[in-house]
Amino acid sequence: MLADVELAKSYRLLNHGPTVLVSSAAGGKRNVMAAAWAMPLDFDPPKVLVVVDKSTCTRELIEASGEFVLNIPCRAQAAQVVRAGSESGHGRDKFASCGLEPLPAQKVGAPRVGGCIAYLECKVVPEPHNQRQYDLFIGEVIAAQADDEVYRDGRWTFSDAAKRSLHYISGGAFFATGESFQAG
Amino acid sequence: MLADVELAKSYRLLNHGPTVLVSSAAGGKRNVMAAAWAMPLDFDPPKVLVVVDKSTCTRELIEASGEFVLNIPCRAQAAQVVRAGSESGHGRDKFASCGLEPLPAQKVGAPRVGGCIAYLECKVVPEPHNQRQYDLFIGEVIAAQADDEVYRDGRWTFSDAAKRSLHYISGGAFFATGESFQAG
Repeated sequence: MLADVELAKSYRLLNHGPTVLVSSAAGGKRNVMAAAWAMPLDFDPPKVLVVVDKSTCTRELIEASGEFVLNIPCRAQAAQVVRAGSESGHGRDKFASCGLEPLPAQKVGAPRVGGCIAYLECKVVPEPHNQRQYDLFIGEVIAAQADDEVYRDGRWTFSDAAKRSLHYISGGAFFATGESFQAG
Repeated sequence: MLADVELAKSYRLLNHGPTVLVSSAAGGKRNVMAAAWAMPLDFDPPKVLVVVDKSTCTRELIEASGEFVLNIPCRAQAAQVVRAGSESGHGRDKFASCGLEPLPAQKVGAPRVGGCIAYLECKVVPEPHNQRQYDLFIGEVIAAQADDEVYRDGRWTFSDAAKRSLHYISGGAFFATGESFQAG
């Protein structure tokens, strides 16, 4: 079941560097793409960074709506994540072509991607120079939820291999998030 | 042994989202801090992003020198990474206090951290607004090397647990980079 994540601690969903799906919508169009280049930027108010190339359909939808969702997919969705990272959304409904289900988000018009293990709903903090020069977007996280089977009390609690988060390598290969251990 | 990594493919060292050590030096001072918030920004010329708080000694040294190294530590160094992420470098030699060895880099004055599995030597791309407003630094990667025991032919090839990269959670806990698999 999805449970709310305290906003000031929502950076913990991304702190370990998982690959994400970026979903967006505007003017009756919607799209989803994979992104390995996303990370937290600040704690409170929580902000995130994501790199979104100029050529993508997602870029148009984010610039038109000022919103996006960072969805954290799990190993069971790895093949769909690869498709979402290789197909273009121009002239195609990528939710359908990638076998992903669009679901309503809580606070933004962009859809969530069904079956993911966490969601960060974001409003763009406009920084036109970063967007133009570096394809870099800053989002303020305005809602966050996670699957309480794998995230509880502010901590990831992975056990089932199918529900672990993903770290993209290249050429359709990933690392699964590995074992946790205490170091200090 | 360290082997050169082709610059246009050096993003692959960071693509899976590992925690890094940021090392820097200026005016006879040197420092090292841990950072979970680092990622690639561009392929060629390769650029990276890293968040460095205003309060840190590292921040002063990066702003004074315009250089830093992103060092990718491994599980054998996890306890030192936690210390490097919790102690301040003001008034202290953190290499000594954290049990880390400073080694000369190839192209920058900032030291490398001995025993890490990869190194990205960076020159700051000055973006004063990002630095001031978001503590966000852009670096162009001008030299990259990796330990050929765990990185070969443009791919991580982890086997030994002690030499896997790290993904910081919080409170001194990490995920090790997990198993790799082919999805698409």
